[in-house]
Amino acid sequence: MKKLEERIQKDGVVKEGNVLKVDSFLNHQMDVELFNEMGKEFKRLFQDAPINKILTIEASGIGIACIVAQSFHVPVVFAKKAQSINIDGEVFSSKVESFTHKRVYDVIVSKKYLSPEDHVLVIDDFLANGCAVMGLIELIKSSGATLEGVGIAVEKGFQEGGRMIREQGIHLESLAIVESMDAATGKIQFREQ
Amino acid sequence: MKKLEERIQKDGVVKEGNVLKVDSFLNHQMDVELFNEMGKEFKRLFQDAPINKILTIEASGIGIACIVAQSFHVPVVFAKKAQSINIDGEVFSSKVESFTHKRVYDVIVSKKYLSPEDHVLVIDDFLANGCAVMGLIELIKSSGATLEGVGIAVEKGFQEGGRMIREQGIHLESLAIVESMDAATGKIQFREQ
Repeated sequence: MKKLEERIQKDGVVKEGNVLKVDSFLNHQMDVELFNEMGKEFKRLFQDAPINKILTIEASGIGIACIVAQSFHVPVVFAKKAQSINIDGEVFSSKVESFTHKRVYDVIVSKKYLSPEDHVLVIDDFLANGCAVMGLIELIKSSGATLEGVGIAVEKGFQEGGRMIREQGIHLESLAIVESMDAATGKIQFREQ
Repeated sequence: MKKLEERIQKDGVVKEGNVLKVDSFLNHQMDVELFNEMGKEFKRLFQDAPINKILTIEASGIGIACIVAQSFHVPVVFAKKAQSINIDGEVFSSKVESFTHKRVYDVIVSKKYLSPEDHVLVIDDFLANGCAVMGLIELIKSSGATLEGVGIAVEKGFQEGGRMIREQGIHLESLAIVESMDAATGKIQFREQ
């Protein structure tokens, strides 16, 4: 998606250690008008899928998922990163390793909100090693729901997550795929799509 | 807001200990069409305020805040609950006590995203004791930004948060104020507005 690539080029900051900071518009401050255009693009890319629910993970996936959900006219469910006393009854759970926070999370969704009738689109802001998305896919499998696809804002194409997910035959669409980036020059190269 | 009160009456679950569970449409599974109507109502209620930014707190405030932001055509910033290595440079911080999770959080916002030029509307899903909102207001004060008001989906009118905030002369609008509820009967009484 040209507009997202241009925005990353303009406002993204490349840091040592393959860190791409897009917190001025994507995951701390959030440009909801841009999210809205991303929603329309995801709708175009997944137009043939009978999606009736969007699944994301807290916290930074929630904003994008909610705006994207408007294009699909479906509810959003967000997976939570730790057991809360306000989660009722039984939950589906999986484990996700966060390299950012250097720990392993339990990721949970109430069994009330994922069922075999659901056709689920997974939405997240970032795809790098793929741990978060794989955790969400495991929740969907546990529930008996159908995974219709995965929509990502920014994929780090030089990490293994995207390849791993595509090799499983999953319909993955990333609106911008960073092929390489250089902390010294700030230059970001995108994969042609 | 009649439609929200009706939804709480229909799908909310009252539990012992003054717990109101609305996770089927507000803060675990999220009904974005309802959020959109809430956004229009907040726009009506705060129409005279020169709001240029919405501030919320992760995680369950983010979805509502993003949809509401579409009615105001402004970006959203969400405060984070712990120091992340991906937060750059300096941050504004305050402390918030969570009764749900029985702990005290550090709540932070990057100094890049709140400044004296900002006119901020605080949005959150729930108001009970007011700790989260007071933490956000403290962040706004630290930044020199102007607090234009606070918009809440569901206020527990029998807890002190709402009174505390209104007594400070802050423009607080809660779309549904629960006056009392009864776990035995499931009955929920709303304040007339």
